[in-house]
Amino acid sequence: MTKSNKIAVVLAGCGVYDGAEIHESVFALWAIAAAGATYDIYAPDMQQHHVINHLNGQEMSEKRNVLVEAARIARGNILPLSELDASKADAILFPGGFGVAKNLCSFAVDGADCTVNPEVKRVVKDFHNAQEPIAALCISPVLITKILGNTEVTIGSDKDTASAIETMGGKHVTTTHGEVIIDTSNKVVTTPCYMLDASVLQIADGAKNIVAALMKLLAPVQNH
Amino acid sequence: MTKSNKIAVVLAGCGVYDGAEIHESVFALWAIAAAGATYDIYAPDMQQHHVINHLNGQEMSEKRNVLVEAARIARGNILPLSELDASKADAILFPGGFGVAKNLCSFAVDGADCTVNPEVKRVVKDFHNAQEPIAALCISPVLITKILGNTEVTIGSDKDTASAIETMGGKHVTTTHGEVIIDTSNKVVTTPCYMLDASVLQIADGAKNIVAALMKLLAPVQNH
Repeated sequence: MTKSNKIAVVLAGCGVYDGAEIHESVFALWAIAAAGATYDIYAPDMQQHHVINHLNGQEMSEKRNVLVEAARIARGNILPLSELDASKADAILFPGGFGVAKNLCSFAVDGADCTVNPEVKRVVKDFHNAQEPIAALCISPVLITKILGNTEVTIGSDKDTASAIETMGGKHVTTTHGEVIIDTSNKVVTTPCYMLDASVLQIADGAKNIVAALMKLLAPVQNH
Repeated sequence: MTKSNKIAVVLAGCGVYDGAEIHESVFALWAIAAAGATYDIYAPDMQQHHVINHLNGQEMSEKRNVLVEAARIARGNILPLSELDASKADAILFPGGFGVAKNLCSFAVDGADCTVNPEVKRVVKDFHNAQEPIAALCISPVLITKILGNTEVTIGSDKDTASAIETMGGKHVTTTHGEVIIDTSNKVVTTPCYMLDASVLQIADGAKNIVAALMKLLAPVQNH
């Protein structure tokens, strides 16, 4: 029996304005399954930076936990990020959403000077050191560049974010819908998704394309 | 210029255990767009029946609003259900999730004796009276049967739910992954999705198939 490649998907909550972007997350799972791979879903067990009312855009006075909310997208099949290391999967994938820039790192507040959640940093460095591929959708490339430094990535065409990526030591490449930038030396693949004003079909295409690029970077399946 | 068909998608929150099932909701939007139609998203402006921690399955002591949480899936592009009537769209679609059986009606608590949210009842009756098609995924057929009575529907193969549908005056047809039951006289189409133990690919297929069936039932596009 052929063993499937396993992709670790890391969610930053549940909802574009304070968590993981839901469409990007769901289409990433779909693209992984359609590519014949399997996935496990992870999220950090931590309080969200804040909670945004997605109807009116205003901050709410309550507290929510990233892992507990991400479990909504995962239908309860989710593990704390503390249990993830490079031995548990063949590659790692980060959907976007403001949660990446608010919960996984502080980019939304601090820009290029942001700090990264220590567990997220440990995990990304571990996959990178093990030469396992890393996929980052939407705003997630800022997180990867902050951790790894000199990486070639795309967040689409937003000039301020692209400039911050260059400040953090990365190289930004402008792209449009569905395009994927492949940094072969770092095994990092990125695509803009909702960093552009996109339709749900364009998000599905972006997810499919980035997972296809990720699969190409995968070494033959290891037993683990 | 050809006008696209417009589908009203009604969400019951955000998350399988207390709201709209997220995968079914996202794939429904995707299937509608892929079929060349457009969508508007609606949800009732009401307090959720309760809030479930999706990590451990326990009830939480907080309150959440169905419309505000559904806005997470809709990325803020959502309208209160009070603004929906049959003149606003050519068809209506209900993704599943326990929210349908807890927020839109009380089926999860009361079974065949359930009550239906008055706004949901008004909207479903309005589309039915206007002979506009109705699509219901997963557990949503119980809602439609409770409102319309004698309808032929499927929720997959769960015997208790099928029996409750018959008690409410409906006819249940057992189905498996991706199958769609088409009640042509009532213009009601149904498919089981996560009422079966399904993969994300099977949910995408179910959404695609039910939207295809819905499109076939649509009259030539009206100007509205």
